[in-house]
Amino acid sequence: MSSSNGLTCFTNCLLPLEDGSLVEKDLWIDERRGVLLDSQKTFFERKERPARIIDLQGNILSPGFLDIQINGAYGFDFSVFEGANTYRKGLNTVAEKIVETGVTSLVPTLITQEKSLYPTILPLLRPFTHPHGATILGWHAEGPFLQLAKRGAHAPVFLKSASSGFASFEDMYGAANLAYAEDWLMDDGGLAAGVRIVTAAPEIEGVMDAVKPLVERGVVFSIGHSIATTDIAAAAVRRGARLITHLFNAMPQLHHRDPSIIGLLGASPHVALPTTPTPSPAYAPAERPTRDFAKPQSEAFDEHETPPQTPVLAATHGAGRVHGMHLERGKVAEGPFERPFYELIVDGIHSHPNSVRLAYNAYPEGCILITDAMKILDPHLKDGVHEWRDGKRFVKEGVKLYLEGTDTLAGSVVTLDTCVRNFSSFTGCSLGEAIKCATLNPAKCLGIENRKGTLRPGADADLVVLDRKGNVLSTWVSGKEVWKKA
Amino acid sequence: MSSSNGLTCFTNCLLPLEDGSLVEKDLWIDERRGVLLDSQKTFFERKERPARIIDLQGNILSPGFLDIQINGAYGFDFSVFEGANTYRKGLNTVAEKIVETGVTSLVPTLITQEKSLYPTILPLLRPFTHPHGATILGWHAEGPFLQLAKRGAHAPVFLKSASSGFASFEDMYGAANLAYAEDWLMDDGGLAAGVRIVTAAPEIEGVMDAVKPLVERGVVFSIGHSIATTDIAAAAVRRGARLITHLFNAMPQLHHRDPSIIGLLGASPHVALPTTPTPSPAYAPAERPTRDFAKPQSEAFDEHETPPQTPVLAATHGAGRVHGMHLERGKVAEGPFERPFYELIVDGIHSHPNSVRLAYNAYPEGCILITDAMKILDPHLKDGVHEWRDGKRFVKEGVKLYLEGTDTLAGSVVTLDTCVRNFSSFTGCSLGEAIKCATLNPAKCLGIENRKGTLRPGADADLVVLDRKGNVLSTWVSGKEVWKKA
Repeated sequence: MSSSNGLTCFTNCLLPLEDGSLVEKDLWIDERRGVLLDSQKTFFERKERPARIIDLQGNILSPGFLDIQINGAYGFDFSVFEGANTYRKGLNTVAEKIVETGVTSLVPTLITQEKSLYPTILPLLRPFTHPHGATILGWHAEGPFLQLAKRGAHAPVFLKSASSGFASFEDMYGAANLAYAEDWLMDDGGLAAGVRIVTAAPEIEGVMDAVKPLVERGVVFSIGHSIATTDIAAAAVRRGARLITHLFNAMPQLHHRDPSIIGLLGASPHVALPTTPTPSPAYAPAERPTRDFAKPQSEAFDEHETPPQTPVLAATHGAGRVHGMHLERGKVAEGPFERPFYELIVDGIHSHPNSVRLAYNAYPEGCILITDAMKILDPHLKDGVHEWRDGKRFVKEGVKLYLEGTDTLAGSVVTLDTCVRNFSSFTGCSLGEAIKCATLNPAKCLGIENRKGTLRPGADADLVVLDRKGNVLSTWVSGKEVWKKA
Repeated sequence: MSSSNGLTCFTNCLLPLEDGSLVEKDLWIDERRGVLLDSQKTFFERKERPARIIDLQGNILSPGFLDIQINGAYGFDFSVFEGANTYRKGLNTVAEKIVETGVTSLVPTLITQEKSLYPTILPLLRPFTHPHGATILGWHAEGPFLQLAKRGAHAPVFLKSASSGFASFEDMYGAANLAYAEDWLMDDGGLAAGVRIVTAAPEIEGVMDAVKPLVERGVVFSIGHSIATTDIAAAAVRRGARLITHLFNAMPQLHHRDPSIIGLLGASPHVALPTTPTPSPAYAPAERPTRDFAKPQSEAFDEHETPPQTPVLAATHGAGRVHGMHLERGKVAEGPFERPFYELIVDGIHSHPNSVRLAYNAYPEGCILITDAMKILDPHLKDGVHEWRDGKRFVKEGVKLYLEGTDTLAGSVVTLDTCVRNFSSFTGCSLGEAIKCATLNPAKCLGIENRKGTLRPGADADLVVLDRKGNVLSTWVSGKEVWKKA
């Protein structure tokens, strides 16, 4: 299949641009180097001709998708260690198979582990390119510095505070794994795109102090499994937090008086104190019979509203012991403020379509589609009852997965290409805009938008061909076709 | 002050256009008829010259503000009846004084009353133009068909179900007050802009059936003081509901699985069922040790989240007895769907600035600023302790009003011009865009955007002059200056 000069030109296709539009345009790649070319320069300046022309028949040629939160797939769980060889084999299986869903890069997620497992597993998640599978970009450590009250399925016994700040993180993950980016990244055939993401709750003791040192080392700090107030969440952002883990899930609901983590999507960089009218002559209010202001309330909540829930299970491992976090209301704290990226699971189950549209409209540039999938993710898995463990069984109905005999959801089994299609349908955005949320936006969040999730010249030739409805037709990694629809 | 031909030209000013921009442009009015003119036609076609030219020195000339939810001001409470003359006098006082806040039209709000008071008060709230004050546009009946669990300060004993549907509404408000718009509106010197708004909870028995008949009679149906689920709220919109009463307040918090009333801001007109991948060969899941799917849950909420609160005080007067409201999830119901307008109290207290921005970004065209002010509203009222009743006292601090000795908010005392300035600051929108939310948007919601809240030729010459920061410099009603900053 290789062409004589290695130049391939995709023609008769729609390319998603970075503004979310889809335009009819050719794309040139250098198949040997596995990179995208500048078509103009290649054709007009270098006067080269492609050895191979591929007619895409009007379909979409997109950058390959990035999944930055995925727990496992095709029977392998990134959080289960049964020996290094088994682990490597599992990773390879996922990398090889997941390309059928349009994913060409992923960040395996490690949920909260017993401490000794981190130095064992994390080195296995150094970035590597697979010759005919998706690229492993690095790791996403979700936990153990999480809020007990929002722990979800994370094992309570392993949750920790970070009383020594960054040193606690080094102690947990291993100092080598938190080295400065340039010391940590492997140079595997030119891949300098290794990433590390840490999901932690900024209200947990010591976590806030660790944000800056983590960010300085090139780690993406993500707020998640947290009950941070608006002030604490905003302070974490000012220190460098740039992502919200599975928005809506494992965080307080949006309360209008303290919109907390979700409210960051509506945060202004500079909000002044409310303007107050100039007082002048006195006015004595008279009686008003139908409203009762006498009811005692512990918080400043008015007549419209019952006071918000207080967290039922406040963490006993450090919550509430955050120092210097009680910023004066309305005061603009020091440091720059940019709204963080946020992850959305768009399977139509984990968040209602209206919630998805609300979040997206509030801050489209920050939206990142993720699967957060369990190891059971496999588009070939039949609907019906499946064995689990301890005699328990699953019922799979499309993208829904229940524990048999209950209506308890058993996690996500949605594929990322399905999320892209759902997202366009739920929000009314174009397919090009939905694609951006699975390509450019995650790449930008990770700071690798010159290499991945883009069609910029020089980027890796990781591509996915989609029909006009967003169904995957073929997937390309480093300029080579690695999957094709039967 | 009257000019010989009645033509006045405002010059050297910025006009807010309907797209939210501010442009340098003259505005002509016919002072005698009290209407706006088409400058082009008047000057070029009719070759007329203004008898009077007013140089606004670069300030903003906006349509007068509309406040569609206000409980009282300057010591008068729209919900307190102490005789028709006292009531008329109180209305006049508000109309005369409120123009200093830029408001030239208002819809007095009647909170839940004992039944016999509706036929007494509502006829007093027929629309009327005040010669040198704001126009009373009609009435806003907030209650009594409200949800007990979200009653706020509404008297529980007066809350009602509407078991006979629209007939219950007629019985409550009086059939004459719910007559077809053309039969109800007074023709007071050409004012055909009378409006009626009803806030009700669509989940209360009989309310859903009443939405369509109310809308057909020209009443604006507003969803409020409600625990409607997403499906019920959307069904009310499909039947004609076009407003949400004080968004965020007296309704469920945004839950991502059932985003309820707030989620309507993110509702798509046509949301298809989530796409499911095509199942093929079976895949048997293996063990996964760290997640526990066995915990019993009564609802389909997954591992990320504790189940949502169930309403503590479900209404005993009809909630849950709604028929035909359980729409199949994901199914698009019959009837057109347009996202409703929504009211926001932007005093920096009733909703956090981030919540305000989140809502506005989600659906800018639907945003309506309101004061929801209490009778204590008066920008001249000094900060400090003020007598209330039964020996109770208020502490006023700027726009905050507490019951003395508590931190219980005692309602809103913010002026609408303050809300406009806050809104621009909170959301980062331009002053022109903020003005739109206090002029064109409420007028559109009420269907009177050719007469009020606009600078269209032929509209009423109700105007407010603002400095570049949004402070009111002068207010004009029907082409006459009715207030000027000292």
